[in-house]
Formats: sequence, C-alpha cells, structure tokens
Amino acid sequence: MTAPQSGAQRPLPAAFIDAMSTRFGARFTLSEAVRAHHGHDESHFPDALPDAVVFVHSTEETAAVVRCCREFAVPVIAFGTGSSLEGHILPVRGGISVDFSEMNKVLDIRVADLDVVVQPGVTRKQLNAELHGTGLFFPIDPGADASLGGMAATRASGTNAVRYGTMRENVLGLTAVMADGSVIHTGGRARKSSAGYDLTRLLIGSEGTLGLITELAVRLHPLPEAVSAAVCAFPDVVSAVNTVIQTIQLGIPVARIELVDDLTVKALNRYSKTSLREAPMLFFEFHGTPASVEEQARTVQDVAGEYGGLDFEWAHRPEDRSRLWAARHDVYFASINLRPGCRGLTTDVCVPISRLADCVGATRADIDASGLIAPIVGHVGDGNFHTVILVAPHDDAEIARAEALNRRIVERALEMGGTCTGEHGIGFGKQGFMLREHGAPAIEVMRQIKRALDPDDLLNPGKILPPG
Amino acid sequence: MTAPQSGAQRPLPAAFIDAMSTRFGARFTLSEAVRAHHGHDESHFPDALPDAVVFVHSTEETAAVVRCCREFAVPVIAFGTGSSLEGHILPVRGGISVDFSEMNKVLDIRVADLDVVVQPGVTRKQLNAELHGTGLFFPIDPGADASLGGMAATRASGTNAVRYGTMRENVLGLTAVMADGSVIHTGGRARKSSAGYDLTRLLIGSEGTLGLITELAVRLHPLPEAVSAAVCAFPDVVSAVNTVIQTIQLGIPVARIELVDDLTVKALNRYSKTSLREAPMLFFEFHGTPASVEEQARTVQDVAGEYGGLDFEWAHRPEDRSRLWAARHDVYFASINLRPGCRGLTTDVCVPISRLADCVGATRADIDASGLIAPIVGHVGDGNFHTVILVAPHDDAEIARAEALNRRIVERALEMGGTCTGEHGIGFGKQGFMLREHGAPAIEVMRQIKRALDPDDLLNPGKILPPG
Repeated sequence: MTAPQSGAQRPLPAAFIDAMSTRFGARFTLSEAVRAHHGHDESHFPDALPDAVVFVHSTEETAAVVRCCREFAVPVIAFGTGSSLEGHILPVRGGISVDFSEMNKVLDIRVADLDVVVQPGVTRKQLNAELHGTGLFFPIDPGADASLGGMAATRASGTNAVRYGTMRENVLGLTAVMADGSVIHTGGRARKSSAGYDLTRLLIGSEGTLGLITELAVRLHPLPEAVSAAVCAFPDVVSAVNTVIQTIQLGIPVARIELVDDLTVKALNRYSKTSLREAPMLFFEFHGTPASVEEQARTVQDVAGEYGGLDFEWAHRPEDRSRLWAARHDVYFASINLRPGCRGLTTDVCVPISRLADCVGATRADIDASGLIAPIVGHVGDGNFHTVILVAPHDDAEIARAEALNRRIVERALEMGGTCTGEHGIGFGKQGFMLREHGAPAIEVMRQIKRALDPDDLLNPGKILPPG
Repeated sequence: MTAPQSGAQRPLPAAFIDAMSTRFGARFTLSEAVRAHHGHDESHFPDALPDAVVFVHSTEETAAVVRCCREFAVPVIAFGTGSSLEGHILPVRGGISVDFSEMNKVLDIRVADLDVVVQPGVTRKQLNAELHGTGLFFPIDPGADASLGGMAATRASGTNAVRYGTMRENVLGLTAVMADGSVIHTGGRARKSSAGYDLTRLLIGSEGTLGLITELAVRLHPLPEAVSAAVCAFPDVVSAVNTVIQTIQLGIPVARIELVDDLTVKALNRYSKTSLREAPMLFFEFHGTPASVEEQARTVQDVAGEYGGLDFEWAHRPEDRSRLWAARHDVYFASINLRPGCRGLTTDVCVPISRLADCVGATRADIDASGLIAPIVGHVGDGNFHTVILVAPHDDAEIARAEALNRRIVERALEMGGTCTGEHGIGFGKQGFMLREHGAPAIEVMRQIKRALDPDDLLNPGKILPPG
C-alpha cells in the first residue's frame, strides 16, 4: 500500500477563492494551521492537507459549496471529527474540506417515536448528554467520540451492535447534498417502508463519495430498567470465543460481549491501573428488567463455566460498571501506550461466528510469528475483532511488515466468508481488498453508481473504489 | 390510476423464440394457460399476459435469459409465486416472465452461524419446514406463502417485524443477474461490514427493476424457549393503539402485536367460526425464556388495563396459540368473504407510532364516510396497518371510489411523516405517490441509478419510478 499523494493537484483558481470568500467570509480559510488540522485522521497514513477548509452552517450552504466546487472542478471532502481510521478524510487529490463541526445541533427529540433529528456534526456523546432525562439513549459507540454524519458515512458500529445494530439499522432517514448540488431527503419517520430504492442505505457507508450528509434522523432506544455487567477470564482465546458463540446461538439478548486478549489486559492494567488477571477476558453487559438481566447473566455464567471461565466477576453498581467499561474504552490508548510514540495500524475483519475461534487463534499465531506488538480486542458477538498493530510512525520497513500482517489477516477473513472491514470502512487504506472481497462484476456496479451520481468524480475522489 | 396496458408492445422476434427454445426446450413456453398464470397477481389490476414464460434452474440460465432478452430488446419480469399486491409482476410493456419456482432448493443451513442460503423460489413456509429440528426459524411472514426472492425484491415483512425486522435487516447477501447479464455477489456471511456501497440493500426493494435475485443468504433466529400469546378487546381502536404505543415505548421486546378492528373480528367470527367479542382487538405474542415471557405478558396486561382492555385472554398451549394465529392469518380471506366475489384493494401505510392512533381513527372515519366496506388490520408495533377495501372486480365506479379512499389514506400518512407502503412495495399501483413521498430530487437520483444499471430499461419496465 503506497501512501496517498498529498496536497493539491493544481492551485485553487483565484475566482473560486473569491467566490467562496465572498460567500463564507472567515469561515472559508486557507490557513495552514486549519488545513493541517484537516489533513490527518487517526490512521497511520502521512498527512495530506486540503487546499482550503470551509465551515458550513446549513444544508443550503453545503449545496452552495458543492455547486461552487463543481463550477471550478474542485474536489469536496466531508469532515466530521477526523477520527476515521483508513484515511477517509485525506484529500488525496486536493480540494476543500467541508467541516460540519459547527452544524452540531440536536434539532428534534421525539420521545414518543423513539427517534431524533440531528445535524451531522453532533457527536455520539453530545447526543446522549442531550437525551439525558428523556429515558432514551443512542447505543452506537465507535471508539472515538465521532460525529453522527461521519458514523453514517462509514456505517459505524461499536460495542452495542450485537443487540442494537449498526448505523445501517439505526438511521431512519437522511438529508444529503448530491454532486450536482441538489438536496435529497431519503427515508422518513416510519419504521419501515417498501417505497422505492433504499437511498438511505446507499448513502450509509458511502464515505462522502456519493453525497454529503447534512441531517440525519436516527432511532433511539429506551434506557433499560436494569443493567448489569460482568468480566470473566479464560484459559485461552478459543475458550472465550466458544463462550461467545454459544451465547449467541442460545439467543441470549446480550447487549455487549467484548473480547480482550491477555496482551490487552496487560496494557490495561498498566494504563488504567486495573488489576485484572492477565488472561483473555470477556466483558459482558446485560440490559432488561431486573429479572431478565439476572436470568441472562446466570445463563452466560453457566456457559462460561463450561469453557473453563475463571473469576466471573459481577458489576451491579453503576460505578463498578463504569469502571469496567472505562477500562474497555481505554483499550486503544492503553495499547498505544505499550510503546510510547508509536501509532496504531488497526485491523477490522469480521467473520461468520462459526469461524471466529479459528480466525482469532490463527491471527494470534500470525502476530506472534511477525514479531510485531498487536493486542487483539473485539466485538465478538458480531464476529468482528481488531488488532492494534503498533508501528513507529516513520519506520517504513516496520509499516510494511504491519501491512503484510494486515493483509494476511484480511485474506484469511475473506477465505472464511468474512469482510475486510466490519465497521471502520474502506477509505484509502482498504481499497486494495475491494476487488477480492466483492469480485469484479460487483465493483463494476459500484463504479456505475458512482459515475451516475458523481460523473466528474468531485466527491471524496480516490476513496472506496480501487483505481482503474 | 389507469389500468396497465396489457400484453406485448410488439410480437416476440422469431429469432428470439428460436434461441430461447433451443436453449430451454419445453421450459420456454408460449402457452396461453401458462402465460395467463403469469399475467395476474393478488392486486385488483386487470390481467396483463407476458409474451412467453421461461422456467429457470440456475443463476447461469438466468444470465443467459437476460443476455438473450438484451440482444432482442425484450423486457424481463421476475416471477416468484405471483402473490404481489401492486401489480409488480404484470408485464405492462410485454416481455417474458422468468419463473423461479423451480429454483426452490434450500442450499445450505448453517446452524452454527444462524443463517441459510436458499434459491429464490423457496417459500417462507417451505423454509421453516426444512428448518424443522435445527432449533432455528425464519421469522418473516407476509400474508401469502411468498417466495424469498419475491420477499427480498419487495422488502417484505409481516407480523414478526416489530421484533425481528424486515427483509432489509434479515438478508445477509445476494446473488443477482444484472441487466448486462453479469452476475454479482453482494454482502457476505459476516453479520456486518463497512466495505463499500450497500448493493444488498439497493437490490432489496428494487422489485426486479435493477437485477434478478438468483440466490439469497438470510439470517435465522433461535426458536424461543417459551412462547405465549394473548388477545385483548378494547372499547375503541384508539385505546388499542395507545396500548401498542406504550408497549413499544417501554421497550418490551414483544414478538408480535397486531390490531384487528371490530369489522375484521366480525368477518373472522363468520369465516373462522371463532366467537371473539366484536370489538377492536390486539393479538400479542411473546418470545423468550419462560420467566421473561411471563414478565412481558404481565406488563402488557397492565398497560392494556390502563386503556380499558377487556377479556385479556391467554393462550399458553401451542394448540390454542395456533388457533389464535390461524384466525389472524385468515384475516384477508375472511375480509374478502364479507362480500363474496369481490376483490380486495389493500392499503399499506406506515406512520410514526406517535401518529398511529390519529391515523387509524381518521382512516376509520374516512371509510365510514365512503360507504365502502373495508376492515382494518395492522402490524401496529411498526406503525403499519392495512385496510382491505372490498370492490366488485368489474365495477369501475366502485374501484374509482376505492382508489380515491386509498389516496386519502396515503396523503394523510405522508402528511404525518409516513410512507405510502410499509411492506407491499410500489409496483404499478403506487407509482403515483412516489414523487409526493420522496420529492423530485430523490426521484431523479433513483432514475440516475436505474439508467446507470439498466440503460435499456429491460428489467421490469414501468414499475416503481413514475413515468416521465
């Protein structure tokens, strides 16, 4: 995988700069510092600065930006919080970054319908804070405090997906600006519809290459009456994964079921000052009525016991639960901290659950053989897991080894009927796997759609679809 | 709404007939009887016969049919069981009907992964019969014993959608033949993926206008350990609907929650020899462990009590449950039987649940004012309900009044933020509502997609997208 080309292909036309400055004033900027902030995400790819940044305040303004960019053939890259992991927001062919962070209003909380309309710059934590007191919550929780627009664009999920689904299942409708500057409204407020092509799902996961999301309606869920959490250590990763498989097959509606391997536990103990047994562990959370939560937990404890689970530890009190899940959420930074100054190259395969134990076991062996440091952590209820491969930022040889390891992990997942990315998206970093995963005819259909909706290739060019 | 044009636009070219006969032998037929069978669905629209019918046995053969049709510019209409309700399978511009009923094998039941691969002609009842003994079931149950290919093509759902989702949520991946004869594989076996455009969801609900589905992988669910059912009568429809709303808002994971109005109960008592109180009723089903089912049922009984629910009646024994749900499944035929010889014009709106009581109440008033007979029945947990407007098949004036009533019902649902179709699809019958529901820019995007993927308009032409 080569690094993306950085910076502009040609300087911005003066007339474009004039038009944008006239319309947006100081909200359109060529400042080096602002461009630098929009020139990197959480991936290990080198920075690639946009030629300018514009901070939009409305759908209208976004459409005006797209029309102006179209007139001058300037690429347009949507920017939320910059927490993408595959270079999604890097302007690899230059162009301007459209920053949605100032479109961050929660517009309409509809308690009776269990849904909410938000602007795309609202982050998941902000949304849950604003839902305080309504009895509802928004469950999707990628590692970062991402924006909802970005989460929709990458089809994000997180630890709750096993019960509550991903962005695919939780977005009811969108407003989006298309490449020709038109504004479309997709979906609606009804829970289901059979009325025509599913433009909502087409835009979800399209990473800003088909349209720019300027408003979203998303589902909310009732806060469970009771919540209980538990951790359990296992003699090995395979035993932990087998516990997961049986839990899912029994139909237990577990809300979260997360794997951390022994290396991750070691990292956590060091970083978060916990004193967990340094063995592979599962973190569970159960949602429901008090009786149902207790019943779920008891059943899972029995299953874990069958697979040699040790130290099944309960956390009934909110503060204990928070401590436990804070540790789980620290995993990324705890992992990075194993090797100060490094960056993480994060893998993201997802496989059918029947293959998960084999896949995780073989991945561990690959990592050990590679000599690289890479903790494993996963949303194993969905068959999705990550390795965080720690690399020195400027050590090209090491990065190449990490990329080779990533390739091996992806190839195995694909052989098992899985996907190269469960929740992070393709961006720039995983384009090389698209053809292998989908086959040439399906890639050609994706290209036909891209060409039909964005004939001049202005929207986030150079992403998702492999070159050629 | 005018009736579709019936029959061919021009005779099939002799060379086309030769080519198809050579390849398919007796499985390609011009027989009047076979064409007649493929010239009507369950809608009230007049018959429109295809010019020929071909019975395919494989993806390969389907691709060969499409390539041959493309060569001779002959329209291609996919046919499952013919149970569509909006004229989906009517060849309004002539062409050939591709019958998938002989592609009806369950290919691979993967118990450990809770999924199954099927050919598109497998029906939902056949699938559940073949799943017997696995501990798994397929929950999606439209009224008819539809084929899974057809259910995917119309984004179907049914009584279990409130808990288990629709075809949108339950299809993992598809094989499809596109208009150029290419074969694509979408999705995969992983539970989630962020790898590129969601072609699976684009094909689901596309009603054979973008591609022909020749294989599906669908999710299965563990058979619940315990099942309990109940019926409860209410003083009026609004009280029943308010019980539904509160049940959903409390987050009770009810598996089914169905409304039948008093007229429907009267029809059922007459047709199914039941002796239910002739008042609006809710039918419930609860899935889970014995303890959780009992807890759910107790909570719902309390809620129903708050809204004046009467005669809350339990059905714990399988035979009592079957009797109850058999009655619910008889609704369509019981309704038709209220007026022997008539056909049903079935409405299908879906609204945000906060508007459901208003919507159902106003719909009842509209029906009463119209002088037409139209029982109301609905999957109210999703905000979706049907009226079955009984019309004499050849009484154009009465059909026009029924269509006017349907329009009023749809317009109200759209004003409430709902959709013209929750689960039946657009076909020919609801094209007139597409522009109003989606707006011109979104319709233009749908047209761009259709033109890109089927530039010669060969796949089920004249459906979904309004003319013009």
